[in-house]
Amino acid sequence: MARDKKKKPVRPKALPPKGFRDYFGAEVAERNAMLSQIAEVYHRYGFDALESSAVETVEALGSFLPDVERPNAGVFAWQDEDEAWMALRYDLTAPLARVYAQHRNELPTPYRRYAMGPVWRNEKPGPGRYRQFYQCDADTVGTASVAADAEICAMLSDTLEKVGIPRGDYIIRVNNRKVLNGVLEVMGLNEGAQRDAVLRTIDKFDKVGERGVRELLTKGRLDASGAYIDGVGLSVDQAEPVIAFLTSKATDTAGTLANLRNAVGGSTIGLDGINELETIGELLAAGGYGPDRIVIDPSVVRGLGYYTGPVYEAELTFEILDAKGRKRQFGSVAGGGRYDDLVKRFTGQEVPATGVSIGVDRLLAALREKGRISSKPKGPVVVTVMDRDRMGDYQAMVAELRNAGIRAEVYLGNPKNFGNQLKYADKRESPVAVIEGGNEKEAGVVLLKDLALGTRLSAEIETAEEWKAQPAQIEIKRSDLVEEVRKMIARAEGLD
Amino acid sequence: MARDKKKKPVRPKALPPKGFRDYFGAEVAERNAMLSQIAEVYHRYGFDALESSAVETVEALGSFLPDVERPNAGVFAWQDEDEAWMALRYDLTAPLARVYAQHRNELPTPYRRYAMGPVWRNEKPGPGRYRQFYQCDADTVGTASVAADAEICAMLSDTLEKVGIPRGDYIIRVNNRKVLNGVLEVMGLNEGAQRDAVLRTIDKFDKVGERGVRELLTKGRLDASGAYIDGVGLSVDQAEPVIAFLTSKATDTAGTLANLRNAVGGSTIGLDGINELETIGELLAAGGYGPDRIVIDPSVVRGLGYYTGPVYEAELTFEILDAKGRKRQFGSVAGGGRYDDLVKRFTGQEVPATGVSIGVDRLLAALREKGRISSKPKGPVVVTVMDRDRMGDYQAMVAELRNAGIRAEVYLGNPKNFGNQLKYADKRESPVAVIEGGNEKEAGVVLLKDLALGTRLSAEIETAEEWKAQPAQIEIKRSDLVEEVRKMIARAEGLD
Repeated sequence: MARDKKKKPVRPKALPPKGFRDYFGAEVAERNAMLSQIAEVYHRYGFDALESSAVETVEALGSFLPDVERPNAGVFAWQDEDEAWMALRYDLTAPLARVYAQHRNELPTPYRRYAMGPVWRNEKPGPGRYRQFYQCDADTVGTASVAADAEICAMLSDTLEKVGIPRGDYIIRVNNRKVLNGVLEVMGLNEGAQRDAVLRTIDKFDKVGERGVRELLTKGRLDASGAYIDGVGLSVDQAEPVIAFLTSKATDTAGTLANLRNAVGGSTIGLDGINELETIGELLAAGGYGPDRIVIDPSVVRGLGYYTGPVYEAELTFEILDAKGRKRQFGSVAGGGRYDDLVKRFTGQEVPATGVSIGVDRLLAALREKGRISSKPKGPVVVTVMDRDRMGDYQAMVAELRNAGIRAEVYLGNPKNFGNQLKYADKRESPVAVIEGGNEKEAGVVLLKDLALGTRLSAEIETAEEWKAQPAQIEIKRSDLVEEVRKMIARAEGLD
Repeated sequence: MARDKKKKPVRPKALPPKGFRDYFGAEVAERNAMLSQIAEVYHRYGFDALESSAVETVEALGSFLPDVERPNAGVFAWQDEDEAWMALRYDLTAPLARVYAQHRNELPTPYRRYAMGPVWRNEKPGPGRYRQFYQCDADTVGTASVAADAEICAMLSDTLEKVGIPRGDYIIRVNNRKVLNGVLEVMGLNEGAQRDAVLRTIDKFDKVGERGVRELLTKGRLDASGAYIDGVGLSVDQAEPVIAFLTSKATDTAGTLANLRNAVGGSTIGLDGINELETIGELLAAGGYGPDRIVIDPSVVRGLGYYTGPVYEAELTFEILDAKGRKRQFGSVAGGGRYDDLVKRFTGQEVPATGVSIGVDRLLAALREKGRISSKPKGPVVVTVMDRDRMGDYQAMVAELRNAGIRAEVYLGNPKNFGNQLKYADKRESPVAVIEGGNEKEAGVVLLKDLALGTRLSAEIETAEEWKAQPAQIEIKRSDLVEEVRKMIARAEGLD
């Protein structure tokens, strides 16, 4: 950072730090609109907003991310003047733990809270991989009742429909870690390296499927790249309960639960988990949430290693084309589950909690994919400046339009070159340009240019005269300005 | 941070770092609601949202805060793995400069942008003084036209009315640094220590008034604490143009401008500034913004040292009681002005810009003061659990209520102690509790308890039987649940 004061000062680079980015215009507005729809649903479910500090003490944050896939992931940390370390939050769960521990006597129990905001990860950035991104979480803290899990699944279902994913285009799948624990118990794998290897293998079910998991649990497997992946070393018979668990989904919930009962044999924890799933199914059915929206499905493996009870995941089932042009399902946009050690680090007490996290960027991408985010022109009407001495007249027009709720601007650059004004309107994706020269002023009229029809030509036009000759232009009475602009915008919106 | 591994691990403190805080429930929702109303107005004016990265490189940020009152204020900074320094943004203007310099070829010129979000200051925290707080800015970059300044004043006026400050309860006052420069020119104070001393003195006009400024410009002044403050050392005659400038506001704009012309004599820059103020007044009048909303007032001194052209400030004129019970005006909630060196650090080019910053917390406080933020009960309806085996019945009720758009919860804690359920409902500021025991179920009815009437009693009631004896309770048909709950909430809202 030291600079030689005698040299000409070096200009700073106009770039954000590596791995950070900016969001412009519609990107910001669309995300805010989606988050506010989500907040509306969460609020209706009795969840209260919590906006915790972006900065936490490193001791409160803990040193490690909960995400087992990225054990080396770090935080952005620095020392305060008094030497205490602080850091940017890396998720919204660690701050919830701190806030709940701090305020547990004043907060209601159970405490339902939602949180939305940026989190920061000190990771190597890559394409599409940023060091600051949004999270959107809802958690219920302080109850062991699976009614809380069922509620979050119902809320997730309502949320997806609210933001614009129609019923039938998504499914929320529910599994339970306790059932898996029962399976492992039956296998005699209560702890140890082999159990951990089995857990890691199950996590790959999404990717390698039933056959792949069977191979990985036993003798090993040749993967797509040609490398041989060592197996866990179970016999084919030993591996069977895991396969039975993963493939136990039947055509209805009763069938699935019966299959699971077979898989866990007499394991108490396993049966406990199955009863929880049954209760979740019953509670959801009572609320009107059938298996067309939320289904018990033991093939959901994401997070089974991390969570302690029910886990749930929302998948979008419509097809999109991947980078190679192949059809595939859109996939997961939200997931969560039950975890029991939320505040133990602070208080020593175990506090049960369950919660969901929505992938904000993925859900936004899905809504764009489905055409649920309007692509209608959102640029402002541009009132051009034909006569710089009559700025007051243009100001009056733009005020009239704005007072009528129409997004509008007067051109504030140098008005000398009329072509530049039209280029500006083009860049702004303006639907309508308003033109009032001296002749129009005298005749009590203004010209409206339909830019949605003529934007491509505008870059070539240099003078107001050429512009007037364009077909998409009409002359209206000055007194009809608001009404006629409104009509033209409506027509432009109809063009989409 | 080093810990003796043999000792019992020390539990982390459940506290945010010093100077940081959390926001709960309604605080978050109220601020978001206000910001989204502001965004709606800004969008209508053609301003585009910009959400820049919270983290900037230290070189892009620059080392110093623009706020002359806090020259030692710092940032939170740390080194990346490649040794590069980065820091949390301390305002929203420095990031705008970086973004504009980075994207100037793709962005429209002029570029109207708004930004809302947290900023961080590495300052000594104090009561009510936090190290993370919200800012809300709108700036127009790339035009020297004072139509941009006038537009921002009009937008500020519309914004205040939109969020709930009625016309007459605020005034936006406009001044111009160029006029002051003209006054200083006339005085022969174009630069040097005495000129800076005069500028610093003018900044105290708000606090010490005309007489105080006169004393400080000349021989000095005994301040309220009894200390003697040295004067700038001008003669009474020499000080006169400054006093004339500060007190030049007349009953109408024409009068004010005439007074200012006297104050600046033949100064070109002074006359230029006065013409700008005149143009701003004319443009605003053309848009329908009269002096009841926006007024030319040379007594606005805040920021005159920092800005280069027009400056503006929004003051709320209604009275509140201060900490000592004395009436005073609420005061400033927003301010801004024109500055010309926005991107010069990056590109070498001068780019003119003008912008406003709203004090988010102050404006929220004002709305609360004016009763513009609803104090209606926002807690959820609580469906109590009389029979834990019938959780499905309660789930069905809560789903019905939520589907009807009513904020509702089923009690998810341990249902054994009914009193705890009511204490919970109390803590949640619930307007209505729904009760359905076995008898009610059999009779096809439910009980609704009006908690807005009876919250104070609830803490004393331990059993469901006692509860039923309360007067504010009615029995309704189960099938009328939604309708009757809605009625009871409406009644509770009427109680405010």
